[in-house]
Amino acid sequence: MIEDISVRFLDSFKDKKLVCPVLVEGLPGIGQVGKLVAEYMIHMLDAERIAEIHSIYFPPHVIIEENGVARLTRNELYLHHTEHRDILFLVGDYQSTSNEGHYILADQYLEIASELGVQRIYTLGGFGVGHFVEEPRVLGAINRDGLREEIEASGVVFQRDEPGGGIVGTAGLLLGLGALRNIDAVCLMGETSGYLVDPRSATSVLAVLCSLLNVKVDPTQLNARAAEMERMIEGLIEGEKIQSNEELSYIG
Amino acid sequence: MIEDISVRFLDSFKDKKLVCPVLVEGLPGIGQVGKLVAEYMIHMLDAERIAEIHSIYFPPHVIIEENGVARLTRNELYLHHTEHRDILFLVGDYQSTSNEGHYILADQYLEIASELGVQRIYTLGGFGVGHFVEEPRVLGAINRDGLREEIEASGVVFQRDEPGGGIVGTAGLLLGLGALRNIDAVCLMGETSGYLVDPRSATSVLAVLCSLLNVKVDPTQLNARAAEMERMIEGLIEGEKIQSNEELSYIG
Amino acid sequence: MIEDISVRFLDSFKDKKLVCPVLVEGLPGIGQVGKLVAEYMIHMLDAERIAEIHSIYFPPHVIIEENGVARLTRNELYLHHTEHRDILFLVGDYQSTSNEGHYILADQYLEIASELGVQRIYTLGGFGVGHFVEEPRVLGAINRDGLREEIEASGVVFQRDEPGGGIVGTAGLLLGLGALRNIDAVCLMGETSGYLVDPRSATSVLAVLCSLLNVKVDPTQLNARAAEMERMIEGLIEGEKIQSNEELSYIG
Amino acid sequence: MIEDISVRFLDSFKDKKLVCPVLVEGLPGIGQVGKLVAEYMIHMLDAERIAEIHSIYFPPHVIIEENGVARLTRNELYLHHTEHRDILFLVGDYQSTSNEGHYILADQYLEIASELGVQRIYTLGGFGVGHFVEEPRVLGAINRDGLREEIEASGVVFQRDEPGGGIVGTAGLLLGLGALRNIDAVCLMGETSGYLVDPRSATSVLAVLCSLLNVKVDPTQLNARAAEMERMIEGLIEGEKIQSNEELSYIG
Repeated sequence: MIEDISVRFLDSFKDKKLVCPVLVEGLPGIGQVGKLVAEYMIHMLDAERIAEIHSIYFPPHVIIEENGVARLTRNELYLHHTEHRDILFLVGDYQSTSNEGHYILADQYLEIASELGVQRIYTLGGFGVGHFVEEPRVLGAINRDGLREEIEASGVVFQRDEPGGGIVGTAGLLLGLGALRNIDAVCLMGETSGYLVDPRSATSVLAVLCSLLNVKVDPTQLNARAAEMERMIEGLIEGEKIQSNEELSYIG
Repeated sequence: MIEDISVRFLDSFKDKKLVCPVLVEGLPGIGQVGKLVAEYMIHMLDAERIAEIHSIYFPPHVIIEENGVARLTRNELYLHHTEHRDILFLVGDYQSTSNEGHYILADQYLEIASELGVQRIYTLGGFGVGHFVEEPRVLGAINRDGLREEIEASGVVFQRDEPGGGIVGTAGLLLGLGALRNIDAVCLMGETSGYLVDPRSATSVLAVLCSLLNVKVDPTQLNARAAEMERMIEGLIEGEKIQSNEELSYIG
Repeated sequence: MIEDISVRFLDSFKDKKLVCPVLVEGLPGIGQVGKLVAEYMIHMLDAERIAEIHSIYFPPHVIIEENGVARLTRNELYLHHTEHRDILFLVGDYQSTSNEGHYILADQYLEIASELGVQRIYTLGGFGVGHFVEEPRVLGAINRDGLREEIEASGVVFQRDEPGGGIVGTAGLLLGLGALRNIDAVCLMGETSGYLVDPRSATSVLAVLCSLLNVKVDPTQLNARAAEMERMIEGLIEGEKIQSNEELSYIG
Repeated sequence: MIEDISVRFLDSFKDKKLVCPVLVEGLPGIGQVGKLVAEYMIHMLDAERIAEIHSIYFPPHVIIEENGVARLTRNELYLHHTEHRDILFLVGDYQSTSNEGHYILADQYLEIASELGVQRIYTLGGFGVGHFVEEPRVLGAINRDGLREEIEASGVVFQRDEPGGGIVGTAGLLLGLGALRNIDAVCLMGETSGYLVDPRSATSVLAVLCSLLNVKVDPTQLNARAAEMERMIEGLIEGEKIQSNEELSYIG
């Protein structure tokens, strides 16, 4: 019988004794903000892939990689060693397809975190505001009152009633279920329109997270991607204006 | 593996020997009537929080509290001591997201009730009639024929074929599943339009319930909220009339 | 933990040794044909209620009976003794709300049938044709080739490719799953528009079933209900014609 | 309690020692391409039916066969002996109705394959392109890099980013879950519009598969069906053109 969730650590990951590990979660979500940040950090820090997670709660299909090899939809763990602490990243293709699956998966992630001795979790996401934001703020949520001061000091905004609808999925449940296990967890949400993939919002979150983790990640490539995205959007708006003017002159 | 439902009694709740306890259920539902009544009573009686209930059948998100702390969506138990009996309140953010979850949660609530020696359950709800009701009646349903006389004596109306569609969710299942466990249960439903949160309907239910429980709860604040709501609705209707007249004079 | 399905035999049903029992299933479905037939037979034969079945796969609500007593949605078993054989009836409020639940419930019904020594099952239903049928035929399906001749002899029509979409729910699964348990099962489907409750179609099925079971059930009341239904429909059509003529004369 | 999945091998299938068996999966899917190919091969090779599979994850209904006998929706295994290897075919009425069921069924198929010593799996499907294709190519996906060369040599195209959405259902999961069990698996997808059953696409896949399996299957009947289909479509297009011309002349 297939397991509901299977976690496979790679053979290369022999030594499970990590130094003061923190876990950064960046699964798909609003504006793909969390995913952009976590995958960018993995790329720039050349983090090591250490585990893959499959589950019957992920969509039932395979993804074709460039070489034609199909693989199950999955989540993955990456590891980056720094002098003072180890950083684990949780990234992947999808979140759960069912409500119950969200809980069961989040609990499994916490079980892994527990076993690896994780002392703090950062979950990343977007905070949809419904309009374009030039300088996206980073909003925060915590799972223990004592965490707020430190997080605010890094520039994160705690705003009453935001996000009003709560935090949906893994980014939220790791805080809620984490508290029941006494694991500190912080959610960092970049303001974003909610309509498009948003690398600009991701750069804001990246800056805050690097400061909190005391690591350096050059944001140049992410900034470039954000600038490109903005040119594209401006082009679209410009195009609409021109079309709109032409229509007016046609009428006139 | 995460439990489907976890019930955590607070350490402060040491003495589980309750005196003739009754359980009042007021979870979210039509017009939020049940929720309004139960939470108002908890507030006014300063009832003690004694347990929290989490479940994979609740929506998979966290709620941000005013201090920025995220917590799981949950149900809660509160306790109020009176001279003659103890009153337990079951309130919370949500009911189940799945059909099966409704049954499984309701059964768990009855298991708790059984363990605490609950002798009667009152479930609260709204009864949607599709139009505004000036003086909402309280309709009743019972899970044993012998209960009717007592409940009618307190002003509750038993009307054939109402509610025609039955009672959906926890408020209904506690009666149905309760009967199989020989626990008496009564459902009190305030008439309500079904469109808006309805504190007026809640005041009707509150009066009946207080009489049945022989407790005094000052309804002033709930009445005030109802009056405010009614002014707001009148304002909206007035506004529509004005707009409608303006449109007519424009046409004329 | 609540059982997925609970079957409670009434204390009055002491003697489980039935004589050559057959099971007649008439749960809600197309045109309510099966439900009408089975409940009419229970009524006319004054069959004895012997068991009730509850399940988390039924809709999560209670039904209010005339005396104000709420009860769980359920299925029920009734028993009628005849000289040569005992007839069991399976009726109820609903079928399963989930795909998987349909299989699990049908299997449970077969488990009960097995324990009671049931030798044949008749499942009843409607066969939707999309238009009104004056003299509805009864179409049949069987779960073993050898059954066909006997069933055809009673006037049941076996028509290639009908019903084309197969038989959905309990009426079908009792045949399919029954075959795996070597229990003979026959489905009788009355032709019906599929739009309305259809007592006319039910009278056709009733006649065939009574012949097959060798029991007499006076169809007068069911015929009366069918005639009433037809007058109502004619009235509606008449009304439309009048309206339609009036519109024409208005135009003319 | 009913099993989630039941696999019944026919008594006629005594000798489970197969020679270098491969498994060909052709369940319903896009353009029914996989189903057409696998069922055509079973027909032309007169393969032996050896097992049937039932599951609560299949739709809860029965299918009426020509003789009026109802049977559960199911999947089936067929076997064809060749000199050098045995070929197993997995075909059936439906795939899973739920996401989780897809995983659980695919894992069960792999369990069967494992037990029977299957050394390679071919899964068949259609690749929807949204327009009619005169000479459909066969696209491929593999579950181990080393398989590509052999598959390409038989004329299969590996195209970057196609299919972009991955491969949904059993045809995909047998590759993904197969890799975790170290069973080689190849998916062959015939280009197809995605709108209609497509025997033309099936002939392309058939040719490639026969070459890979080194078996001969006369494609005449499948070609004839494809030709008939194309005449029908041309007729429809022609009809539209005529209608369109008539409309023009009417306007003119």
